[in-house]
Amino acid sequence: MTKGFFMTLEGPEGSGKTTVAKLLVERLEKEVEKSIVLTREPGGIAIAEKIRDVILDVSHTMMDARTEALLYAASRRQHLVEKVMPALTDGKVVVCDRFVDSSLAYQGYGRNIGVDNVWEMNQFAIADLMPQVTFYLDVPIEVGFERIYANKDREINRLDLEKKEFHETVVEGYRQVIERFPERIVVINANQAVEEVTEAIIQTLKQRFPDIFRTLKGGI
Amino acid sequence: MTKGFFMTLEGPEGSGKTTVAKLLVERLEKEVEKSIVLTREPGGIAIAEKIRDVILDVSHTMMDARTEALLYAASRRQHLVEKVMPALTDGKVVVCDRFVDSSLAYQGYGRNIGVDNVWEMNQFAIADLMPQVTFYLDVPIEVGFERIYANKDREINRLDLEKKEFHETVVEGYRQVIERFPERIVVINANQAVEEVTEAIIQTLKQRFPDIFRTLKGGI
Repeated sequence: MTKGFFMTLEGPEGSGKTTVAKLLVERLEKEVEKSIVLTREPGGIAIAEKIRDVILDVSHTMMDARTEALLYAASRRQHLVEKVMPALTDGKVVVCDRFVDSSLAYQGYGRNIGVDNVWEMNQFAIADLMPQVTFYLDVPIEVGFERIYANKDREINRLDLEKKEFHETVVEGYRQVIERFPERIVVINANQAVEEVTEAIIQTLKQRFPDIFRTLKGGI
Repeated sequence: MTKGFFMTLEGPEGSGKTTVAKLLVERLEKEVEKSIVLTREPGGIAIAEKIRDVILDVSHTMMDARTEALLYAASRRQHLVEKVMPALTDGKVVVCDRFVDSSLAYQGYGRNIGVDNVWEMNQFAIADLMPQVTFYLDVPIEVGFERIYANKDREINRLDLEKKEFHETVVEGYRQVIERFPERIVVINANQAVEEVTEAIIQTLKQRFPDIFRTLKGGI
């Protein structure tokens, strides 16, 4: 095999996604022959970083939701072209922390532009480069929210309630995205220790894509 | 009528587009009741200008053609939302120097992404806000190229030949765009004085959209 393997991780804040991504890569490095690349947009790609700066500039209070979605797609495109595509061409395994499904949940559903509209527009950015598999880290809404605020020793205020509502919106957005792509997106129970979450992902990968794992040679 | 009127001007470099736009606005100000707004992307809109800066940054030699097209669409969206939409809501006539057809000709055809692909992606940016009419300023390829270099007293070199090839590509791109939107795009012979070009546009507007012109009251 000369081609690589592309997988993505998705989930709301508090799903443990970033920690799981690191553990997953450690496991893959032990069990997979190919090199592993862990990335997330804009991933240090200069043009993608500049675009992200425009999105996140706090002075841009007038930014329209569709402008924002187009900018995320532009940043995604450049990250794909400069980082993901070369790695896949080199036959590497690319693990990307968040990808198009985040845009569908956050912009399409969360900002009310429509999941279909954001998906169609993103086709232009992605062209044919969709991940072979996506793992959605599923935690109950309350658990996710508690994890986000775990270290904050204070009473819940009005702002927290708004944030909770937003958290619920994102989770509902993801629910719709999962229904739309049942073949590609695998829901993983993330209401357990990160090691167990990682193990569940590895087991699914072994079942569905045994070819990427190192063949055990020899044995007694 | 409380709603405004949206028209765009298109054409390659050397078509006299920008001069005609100014003359056209002078004429419209005399003959139309509504206020006239002349604009072009990014049009002084802070977010759109920032996006344009990312596109034009000479250090961004790695920029992918699709990234560029997405950024133009993002800039277009923000300019629409902050400048064009409010003017139309106020019942004004908006004259926009270049719009989506430029992206179709330059990015879709010129950069080989495909006119269809760029058109579909731009639907997301434009939503339902297409111009009622678009004037394409048509000049023979040689005339357009000569106008671009009219003030340059020197022999044509290799770089000029490359530029000529690009100029021809843009004109061919526009030809495809015109074939695609025969109802909306009116081809104007621009191989004549700018005053005559302007007059031709005014006559077409009077024929097709008589309602935007001031009704002459009284008489003798």
